[in-house]
Amino acid sequence: MLKFNELKQIESVNGALKLRNQIEGIVDRIYSEGFDHIFYMGIGGTYASSMQAVTYITGKSALPVYVENASEYLTTGNRKLTNKSIVIISSVTGSTEEMVRAVSQVKELGARIIGFIDVKEAPLAKSVDYLISYPANEQLKFFMVADRLMFNNGDFSQYEQYYKELDAHLAKALVEVEKAADSFGEQFAQKHKDDSMHYFVGAGNQWGAVYSYAMCYWEEQHWLRSKSIHSSEFFHGTFEVIDRDTAVTLFIGEDEQRPLSERVANFLPRICSRYTIIDTKDYALEGISEEYRGRISHLVLHAVTQRIDAHVEKINCHPMEIRRYYRQLDY
Amino acid sequence: MLKFNELKQIESVNGALKLRNQIEGIVDRIYSEGFDHIFYMGIGGTYASSMQAVTYITGKSALPVYVENASEYLTTGNRKLTNKSIVIISSVTGSTEEMVRAVSQVKELGARIIGFIDVKEAPLAKSVDYLISYPANEQLKFFMVADRLMFNNGDFSQYEQYYKELDAHLAKALVEVEKAADSFGEQFAQKHKDDSMHYFVGAGNQWGAVYSYAMCYWEEQHWLRSKSIHSSEFFHGTFEVIDRDTAVTLFIGEDEQRPLSERVANFLPRICSRYTIIDTKDYALEGISEEYRGRISHLVLHAVTQRIDAHVEKINCHPMEIRRYYRQLDY
Repeated sequence: MLKFNELKQIESVNGALKLRNQIEGIVDRIYSEGFDHIFYMGIGGTYASSMQAVTYITGKSALPVYVENASEYLTTGNRKLTNKSIVIISSVTGSTEEMVRAVSQVKELGARIIGFIDVKEAPLAKSVDYLISYPANEQLKFFMVADRLMFNNGDFSQYEQYYKELDAHLAKALVEVEKAADSFGEQFAQKHKDDSMHYFVGAGNQWGAVYSYAMCYWEEQHWLRSKSIHSSEFFHGTFEVIDRDTAVTLFIGEDEQRPLSERVANFLPRICSRYTIIDTKDYALEGISEEYRGRISHLVLHAVTQRIDAHVEKINCHPMEIRRYYRQLDY
Repeated sequence: MLKFNELKQIESVNGALKLRNQIEGIVDRIYSEGFDHIFYMGIGGTYASSMQAVTYITGKSALPVYVENASEYLTTGNRKLTNKSIVIISSVTGSTEEMVRAVSQVKELGARIIGFIDVKEAPLAKSVDYLISYPANEQLKFFMVADRLMFNNGDFSQYEQYYKELDAHLAKALVEVEKAADSFGEQFAQKHKDDSMHYFVGAGNQWGAVYSYAMCYWEEQHWLRSKSIHSSEFFHGTFEVIDRDTAVTLFIGEDEQRPLSERVANFLPRICSRYTIIDTKDYALEGISEEYRGRISHLVLHAVTQRIDAHVEKINCHPMEIRRYYRQLDY
């Protein structure tokens, strides 16, 4: 399999899960100190992950949690973000300009900042109050904070049981998804490698992932045109430009918003012959209880799209690392 | 001028502004009763207008105001929406399925609902606590509620002066924008009538309008493919697929997020030759003070895009009323 190292991927996920002790210590302390609001702040891909975490929490808890876009914060501001707030961020490089500036303002304000910064020495790493430095697995790390916040808030009584299952089975379950999805990924890549436009549709804790998949993967890394649209909004405009030959991929997860995507799944075949449905339900996830599957739908989706990406990259002879403009120019 | 009736349009805007007494009565009463959160709830075009109102308030006030998508509310729920909340909605037909169901749940919960429903007899009109029935001008109506809320909250001391200017000058200023933009609108329509894809970029209180313009106008009413992208997110993916011949239109407003769009304006000419910049600053708005211009940028944008729409409709021989699927099929 292309770009697939089973052992390394299992270690990567298990290593992220092992951050739990550290995350619990930080979250328990901050929670007991009290807070007014919680913000997941990001831009681009990290904004997308923030949307996922916030949708996830909103479905299960009354915690006052919000998404904040770093650039919007720098201009519009947000008077709800105070010295009593908690801000959660993530950055691979720790040098994204908008994030560095926004987080520095947040720090000055006195809010407590939890930062997952892969590069320990980066500017962002110096601004955060609680630094956790471990590569990749951004969504998993964001959701671990979310879960512990909800546990403290009395919204997740099965927390220990859930993580017992993840510790024992998640890493293996995800590589098994990749194996099961690989030939599909290759066929999909062959079929769609030349698309002039591709529509990606999804909802729930996957919506941020769909937004990011269209923008941060197809546009940014494959240089292929794509548009993401929320399953609920699909019926309020976008579907009018879908016809027989339009490439549409629908992601269906297993969380509360599943019915919104099922509605698209029922409708799509009537107007389009070039659609694909990727349903997390089709993947086994050995060892994960039925009731918990919706909580990790976004990770299953990511495992499937990794297989698509590996094949698109090879077939299109377009290394995913290259950029036309991003960090190539001043802007 | 196509589809332009100066007198009728002036009367339409002035009629909406005359709702102010009624709006003030409702908002003052609700504000004095107290509340926990304020939600602008919508779907599709009304979700877009909700985003605009919430961005507008967030830049000026600490009021606990949020956007809620009706479909997401029906599935994920929102535990912050309680019997102490205020919910603001708008609907032309008053029969949009998701809104009817969501608002009925909100009513059952006991939240107070302010509804702008054009059709007085519609199902939605029966669910709201405070019904205001006046056609069109959705964004203006939403912003009038926002302004009165902020006035009550001590965030808008120039409220009376501002509305004195709007009452005297807004309607005329907006028809003057349309007149000034008409020949531009025709040229734009000629140039872009066959676009295989068109990117619309914007920020601030215009972002919802840009989202809606791409989805509810180009996709839904012109059957032309388009993607909206926030000016801040443009640099985190989408710009990688923009090249010399890509059609890109940037909307620049005059509110707090103007710098985010100016950044796009500075960058775009380096990578693209087929871009258009529509800057609200280029329109006179006689009688409106400089300091208030940013508050109505979205209305200026709408006046300009109305001219584009009138010409696209004629040139493409595609009446804007027709739909392929929307309300033509069960789904």
